[in-house]
Amino acid sequence: MKLNVYLAGEIHSDWRDAIISACDGLPIDWFGPVTEHAASDDCGAEIFGEEDDKFWHDRKGALLNAVRIRTGIARCDVLVVCFGEKYKQWNAAFDAGYAAALGKPVIVLHPPEHDHALKEVDAAANAVARTPQQVARALRYITTATLT
Amino acid sequence: MKLNVYLAGEIHSDWRDAIISACDGLPIDWFGPVTEHAASDDCGAEIFGEEDDKFWHDRKGALLNAVRIRTGIARCDVLVVCFGEKYKQWNAAFDAGYAAALGKPVIVLHPPEHDHALKEVDAAANAVARTPQQVARALRYITTATLT
Amino acid sequence: MKLNVYLAGEIHSDWRDAIISACDGLPIDWFGPVTEHAASDDCGAEIFGEEDDKFWHDRKGALLNAVRIRTGIARCDVLVVCFGEKYKQWNAAFDAGYAAALGKPVIVLHPPEHDHALKEVDAAANAVARTPQQVARALRYITTATLT
Amino acid sequence: MKLNVYLAGEIHSDWRDAIISACDGLPIDWFGPVTEHAASDDCGAEIFGEEDDKFWHDRKGALLNAVRIRTGIARCDVLVVCFGEKYKQWNAAFDAGYAAALGKPVIVLHPPEHDHALKEVDAAANAVARTPQQVARALRYITTATLT
Amino acid sequence: MKLNVYLAGEIHSDWRDAIISACDGLPIDWFGPVTEHAASDDCGAEIFGEEDDKFWHDRKGALLNAVRIRTGIARCDVLVVCFGEKYKQWNAAFDAGYAAALGKPVIVLHPPEHDHALKEVDAAANAVARTPQQVARALRYITTATLT
Amino acid sequence: MKLNVYLAGEIHSDWRDAIISACDGLPIDWFGPVTEHAASDDCGAEIFGEEDDKFWHDRKGALLNAVRIRTGIARCDVLVVCFGEKYKQWNAAFDAGYAAALGKPVIVLHPPEHDHALKEVDAAANAVARTPQQVARALRYITTATLT
Amino acid sequence: MKLNVYLAGEIHSDWRDAIISACDGLPIDWFGPVTEHAASDDCGAEIFGEEDDKFWHDRKGALLNAVRIRTGIARCDVLVVCFGEKYKQWNAAFDAGYAAALGKPVIVLHPPEHDHALKEVDAAANAVARTPQQVARALRYITTATLT
Amino acid sequence: MKLNVYLAGEIHSDWRDAIISACDGLPIDWFGPVTEHAASDDCGAEIFGEEDDKFWHDRKGALLNAVRIRTGIARCDVLVVCFGEKYKQWNAAFDAGYAAALGKPVIVLHPPEHDHALKEVDAAANAVARTPQQVARALRYITTATLT
Repeated sequence: MKLNVYLAGEIHSDWRDAIISACDGLPIDWFGPVTEHAASDDCGAEIFGEEDDKFWHDRKGALLNAVRIRTGIARCDVLVVCFGEKYKQWNAAFDAGYAAALGKPVIVLHPPEHDHALKEVDAAANAVARTPQQVARALRYITTATLT
Repeated sequence: MKLNVYLAGEIHSDWRDAIISACDGLPIDWFGPVTEHAASDDCGAEIFGEEDDKFWHDRKGALLNAVRIRTGIARCDVLVVCFGEKYKQWNAAFDAGYAAALGKPVIVLHPPEHDHALKEVDAAANAVARTPQQVARALRYITTATLT
Repeated sequence: MKLNVYLAGEIHSDWRDAIISACDGLPIDWFGPVTEHAASDDCGAEIFGEEDDKFWHDRKGALLNAVRIRTGIARCDVLVVCFGEKYKQWNAAFDAGYAAALGKPVIVLHPPEHDHALKEVDAAANAVARTPQQVARALRYITTATLT
Repeated sequence: MKLNVYLAGEIHSDWRDAIISACDGLPIDWFGPVTEHAASDDCGAEIFGEEDDKFWHDRKGALLNAVRIRTGIARCDVLVVCFGEKYKQWNAAFDAGYAAALGKPVIVLHPPEHDHALKEVDAAANAVARTPQQVARALRYITTATLT
Repeated sequence: MKLNVYLAGEIHSDWRDAIISACDGLPIDWFGPVTEHAASDDCGAEIFGEEDDKFWHDRKGALLNAVRIRTGIARCDVLVVCFGEKYKQWNAAFDAGYAAALGKPVIVLHPPEHDHALKEVDAAANAVARTPQQVARALRYITTATLT
Repeated sequence: MKLNVYLAGEIHSDWRDAIISACDGLPIDWFGPVTEHAASDDCGAEIFGEEDDKFWHDRKGALLNAVRIRTGIARCDVLVVCFGEKYKQWNAAFDAGYAAALGKPVIVLHPPEHDHALKEVDAAANAVARTPQQVARALRYITTATLT
Repeated sequence: MKLNVYLAGEIHSDWRDAIISACDGLPIDWFGPVTEHAASDDCGAEIFGEEDDKFWHDRKGALLNAVRIRTGIARCDVLVVCFGEKYKQWNAAFDAGYAAALGKPVIVLHPPEHDHALKEVDAAANAVARTPQQVARALRYITTATLT
Repeated sequence: MKLNVYLAGEIHSDWRDAIISACDGLPIDWFGPVTEHAASDDCGAEIFGEEDDKFWHDRKGALLNAVRIRTGIARCDVLVVCFGEKYKQWNAAFDAGYAAALGKPVIVLHPPEHDHALKEVDAAANAVARTPQQVARALRYITTATLT
């Protein structure tokens, strides 16, 4: 079964690449946000004009990024969201909630130390993974219908 | 007319193969759950880690299988659900209810001895078939618009 | 712009062929009910077994035909519905109402003598045509964006 | 259980009154179209100005009536639609299709001679009644949960 | 917080009464199917006329009951579904699937011996209870926001 | 990421061409209304017959154009709407509201002198652009995920 | 029939009061935007803090007003939108498009000189009125089902 | 205008009380999660039985709490979400995303130091407040339509 997978969340480690390369050969189309931090932060002001106020600088960028994010989430069959070791990552949780409300299955990837803090997100998800390899194996199982 | 067909329910007989081979040549894409019993039961624990408690072992597997099932049902134009001779098969009835609520036409396949017990499911369906050949003939009629 | 068009209603004249051939070369996929009257009436009993009671004979056929009809309407961008000179044609009006509730644009094709009786259907439609050629010209305009 | 019931279709016999009085005491709120024929036909032109062309005279009325009809159908839990002996009654079938597409349960009231012509409408309905008393008894059963 | 609760499933034990009386004083409106077995089986034929064929006798009843069931499920905030010791109870699983597809939270009530057979239903639910008292306590917690 | 983009609004300047040519090579399918003014105004009467009354002449055209417009908006991932220097352009604002209610991201293109008059539309949008080149750069960023 | 009516558009004449007083005694609940111009413009900055840039001053106000507007439109059964003699009134057209996409019936109130410019909005509406009295009479007809 | 407001997020300060008391006299019904920390954490295990594994202890609680949370969000017209000084608060961001996907207007309450980390959440919101008093004033403005 072909699958559209959205990879949400952390953009400071290589978890997306790890999943994608471990899924090599599977019929999966990948979606996700812009992962270049500077571009993601500055795209709005860069394209539509500078802002004096950092708040509105951020707003313009976030609104533009949302076009890509919302379109990707709307198209996906499964959203994988990764919570890393650092930062607040509220946008990751926001995307997970957004996907859940649309009825999209969610797979959460995070280390055990976040278990309690992420219990509401995990409870809305179809799987909690600890490594990109587990996510990849799950996607392999879903698309091929075999465990091997 | 091309058709996406989801084959739900019993995984211990060859009714899926019987329908698919009888539909050979028709423009149908087939969807369905994982039909390897052991993989279906153990996938969650196998991929994401063992559980001491059988209840949560089952939960992890069922949640992972649900990703494939919900995606397949969401994509289908018609759900065919088969109730066999054995087991409780509550998941088959659950999938039929799920599909019905999404407005997907349902075709139910079951022997006459289940007629009374399945009357609510049958009443929500567009057809009640007794053999895979009847299902295949119905799908042929729907896709080709001829009875021959 | 590519278009999916559902042709609903009367099955005793050649209006479908007239529209389709007048749209030759346009990027349109056509959908519609089974138009062979005998097959449409008897498909249910023929495939799933005879009924003593004509009422249930008809029910089995209508439910099976509904799989094709509902799938086609769900997929279409525009529903064209034709009301001919004869018969009650309640199923044509039913399909028009069904499409309208889904937000599908409707084009109604009927002779002027039905104007008053069809005023509610016409009022829910985007166009009222008198000939298949008018329908075809409208579809040409919609897909090519030119009137010529 | 309280119920909102929309009474669609024929406006030339007293079937609405028959149902409503037979349901006396039940927790039902009734909805329906304007049943005064002249007002229903002329309301648009009367309120918003005369039209030279009968076609647009009818259009203005039908569009205004649709505000009441669509609002009533949207609010109802059950739509009862009556097909009488006379007239084309395409608006009745249109309303039934509209309600069916919204997932509203439909009860159809018509004499047996319409059985074949209404088979598609009946197949989309939850009940086919022959008399207003049967409809009332069904509504009593639904709201009170007892057959007596 | 006021709550609409639908009680689906088994009609041969007093679990509904046990929950309702244990919730005495809570702001809950209760919904559910007709629980009188004979009325539930025979309502269709009794109201709309006898059928020679048991299959259609059952169909008429199931379709009429569905009006009450679908309306109740549509209105509820939470569906509680009970699987008892006996019978196939496919309608209970069907209702659970139907509610799940509508995004309604589900609480499942069943003895541990059904755990494996109900794992897909449980995985789609927000809670698995063993006794009506547990269900009542959960509803009390949801409505009052306190555990005591 | 492939994108469907609807270009709504002004048809008297070449902003559409400017955006499309600046997006050359990007995986974008373009949608939009008929931009030939005379055809857009007269299509209804031309195809379905002349009207004495200009009001209904316009109505027939607007209803036919709506088939193309609604289909295009329904299919798009992003709606770009341009407000030019002249005319009332209420249809542009109407299309923006229509798209917003469907949850489609909106990019508004207009000169600064319209800022106050368009503040409600801008507030519902994901970006406010001053030039077609800014729109094109935003679409390039969304589809390629890079700012360069 | 009770009705929720949203009064959108122009805030510089007394058309709202004219409709409401002409509907005195009818079972209508009225919804609408904030009609005090200064409050509507400045609410965002006044409550959440001043902005140096007029663009963001307007944005904050428009976003806050949208909470009231969207909630009112979501609740209404009918949206009445008035286009006056002056100003761009793009927010009025935006609200009409928003309501139309939600399937809400729309009644448009405007003088004949706007007929051509508003033809797309009128074509999506159920009625075009010239005076508040016509709107009131239509609402009276819808709620009371009589023309007198 | 009456309003249903859901107060999501932080449960360790008195911001909910501050908003509610500042809104005294307004026609607002308040919704929110269970705010007693211990009850919220332990409700699942307390009601349905202890778990050896903390992960599943948390899961049972989170799933039960979700019944209240999802019902409250579904009913609300506006979701106010507060991000405090401490903790990860991913559930707050999840609820905001969930509400946004349902089309519910969101008001975010947080100190300026979170501005950059919350820029995606803020961009999806209708207002960003710094104090409960600002939220209350906004709700007063929305419900009363005056700024005073």
